[in-house]
Amino acid sequence: MLPDKFRLQIPGPTPIPPGVQQAMAQPMIGHRDPDCSRMVVDLSRRLGPVFGTKEPVLIFTSSGTAALEAAAVNTLAPGEEAAVVVSGAFGDRFAKILERYGITLHRLDVPWGEACQPEILADFLRKHPQVKAVFLTYCETSTGVLHPIGELATVIRQETEALVIVDGVSCIGGVESRFDEWGLDILVTGSQKALMLPPGLAFAAVSERAWQVIENNPQPRFYLDFKTYRTNLEKETTPYTPAVSLLFGLTEVLQMIETEGFTQVIERHDLMMRMTRAGIRGMGLTLMTSDSDASPTVTSILGGNDWSSEDLRKELRRLSFRVAGGQQHLKGKIFRIGHMGYCDPVDVLSTIATIEVAAKRINAPVRLGAGIQAAEEELIHAPSLNH
Amino acid sequence: MLPDKFRLQIPGPTPIPPGVQQAMAQPMIGHRDPDCSRMVVDLSRRLGPVFGTKEPVLIFTSSGTAALEAAAVNTLAPGEEAAVVVSGAFGDRFAKILERYGITLHRLDVPWGEACQPEILADFLRKHPQVKAVFLTYCETSTGVLHPIGELATVIRQETEALVIVDGVSCIGGVESRFDEWGLDILVTGSQKALMLPPGLAFAAVSERAWQVIENNPQPRFYLDFKTYRTNLEKETTPYTPAVSLLFGLTEVLQMIETEGFTQVIERHDLMMRMTRAGIRGMGLTLMTSDSDASPTVTSILGGNDWSSEDLRKELRRLSFRVAGGQQHLKGKIFRIGHMGYCDPVDVLSTIATIEVAAKRINAPVRLGAGIQAAEEELIHAPSLNH
Repeated sequence: MLPDKFRLQIPGPTPIPPGVQQAMAQPMIGHRDPDCSRMVVDLSRRLGPVFGTKEPVLIFTSSGTAALEAAAVNTLAPGEEAAVVVSGAFGDRFAKILERYGITLHRLDVPWGEACQPEILADFLRKHPQVKAVFLTYCETSTGVLHPIGELATVIRQETEALVIVDGVSCIGGVESRFDEWGLDILVTGSQKALMLPPGLAFAAVSERAWQVIENNPQPRFYLDFKTYRTNLEKETTPYTPAVSLLFGLTEVLQMIETEGFTQVIERHDLMMRMTRAGIRGMGLTLMTSDSDASPTVTSILGGNDWSSEDLRKELRRLSFRVAGGQQHLKGKIFRIGHMGYCDPVDVLSTIATIEVAAKRINAPVRLGAGIQAAEEELIHAPSLNH
Repeated sequence: MLPDKFRLQIPGPTPIPPGVQQAMAQPMIGHRDPDCSRMVVDLSRRLGPVFGTKEPVLIFTSSGTAALEAAAVNTLAPGEEAAVVVSGAFGDRFAKILERYGITLHRLDVPWGEACQPEILADFLRKHPQVKAVFLTYCETSTGVLHPIGELATVIRQETEALVIVDGVSCIGGVESRFDEWGLDILVTGSQKALMLPPGLAFAAVSERAWQVIENNPQPRFYLDFKTYRTNLEKETTPYTPAVSLLFGLTEVLQMIETEGFTQVIERHDLMMRMTRAGIRGMGLTLMTSDSDASPTVTSILGGNDWSSEDLRKELRRLSFRVAGGQQHLKGKIFRIGHMGYCDPVDVLSTIATIEVAAKRINAPVRLGAGIQAAEEELIHAPSLNH
């Protein structure tokens, strides 16, 4: 195989489009330069449709985790109560952040690989009427579950006055998001997933209701203080030096999304999910999640009794494909395919075909050709091809 | 003038070398990939000589300000006492961060444009024997002063048990730094200054003495928790997804520094400072700082009574040069030239010559040709040219 040709099919970081690479290579500019001001204002507005909000979106120079922490420290003070829905490693990270800051935590554990049912959350919130915020994960990256955020937000609004705070890191930009319509209060994501950028930027949409809490929250914070970003954005700048090259890249990313059309972007991700799932099922391997709980951006597949998902990953690596393993107690038990961002149905075809080859080579019980045929069928009948 | 050809002579962000741009455009890799592990370990070690430490240097995905905040929240708890030397906007930022976190602050204000004298700091510390940490700025970006960090650290060690915490954002990579030898405890910097990268990474060297304080400090922190970065570095990884493309770039930056030789890098910055200062003096404008207090990375020049530094900046911009203005109460009163990172003596010659042109055009009282001649003399007699 070509040693430097590889396919990055992990659930982030994801491949960078050539046009975005070129955009990021523009000559550096000063962060207080008028050109930078124009870019910051433009980006914060053009991110709105991707989040489903009319409000400008805040931009941070950080990993996604810093934005999760920001959502917590901007809205809650020590001793206040919060609920967290934990269905994987990233719900668990929300819980760890809240514990670190002395928030009284009510943890709703959902089996890993399943979505949270709205009625179960409603019951849970009735038992904890004091919660000031409910923390949800839109796509749980560690399992490939997409939680029904719109429905969950509805029951939260029905049952409580709590803020609805959502980790959208591994899906925003690849799935529908109706921040304003669903009544979300904070929705954060990172740059290195469906948004096709290198890691290093994080984003947050914030509701007017959340701003009222944020303004009055005594929890000390500095770099992650949302207020500072809002007041600086009003002055058409950022409080601290932002990752300018990534902002150059984001400008091109949003141009790409607008050119394709965001509805088509969402359809493409949905199609890639269906192709991946049909392919995995067709070859005889076992999907971790049900069709109704599955994420359009990442798919988890269970290892078998007589073959190891880690051996499959190694074999795929030899064949130029990089897929992810399991996290925490799923380590060595699943593998995960990312299909988001700069990824299209042909990438899924080659992924499925190569998984068949790799699985056969490690003697996993797969039906050669059956998986790729099922994936092809999904593509042949894709409604988006008949537009 | 060519509309897209401009010279970025501000004190950061600084221009990106073409080889670094190319390195950053490498195909994305996963942050848990063995290739990324090797890179993280390699970088944290190779940064050591630039800081002057044998310890691995921690790498953060953030602006430099987050690293300033990290230095504070990792070492101090609310109610504890700290001293801050404030001689400009960035010393002031340290103070603001500490105040935000409820630290009892003893502020030693030094006139903007002057370095802190060791004996004055010694006197000050004798009055405040309870301070647990002293916060210093190595190069005060807002004025172009380089504080004598080695001497200041010596008096701090003589007078107190306090940690010595240093903001090195606008000079590390361009000046001498002897972290271990000087007895510093934390030294932070950012990527977008002398280190020739886009903004988005920050770095911290941490002493063994500091680690003992950090381990026991109850102040809650998550994304900025130094401990998490150390334990993950021991496992050859990072706690959260790092800005991978900037790490690619940093690998090339360190290669460039090692090829030139760090001693030569320091000499080059020193020469650029001397050329800039000779040029400014020669043309008849007034430097803000004395020779002994001047930074090798940034030079501040006072505006005049009958001409405005902002008009000069505008004229320089028309002539393709971007220089910085003053911050806080110096706004409109000074302009600042950055001469660090991917910048060489010929860049300084063109900067000085163009300042003569711009100054003449706005009728500032300059002696045309006298500045550039003085700068040329410095270059002609540069010891580094006779190596």
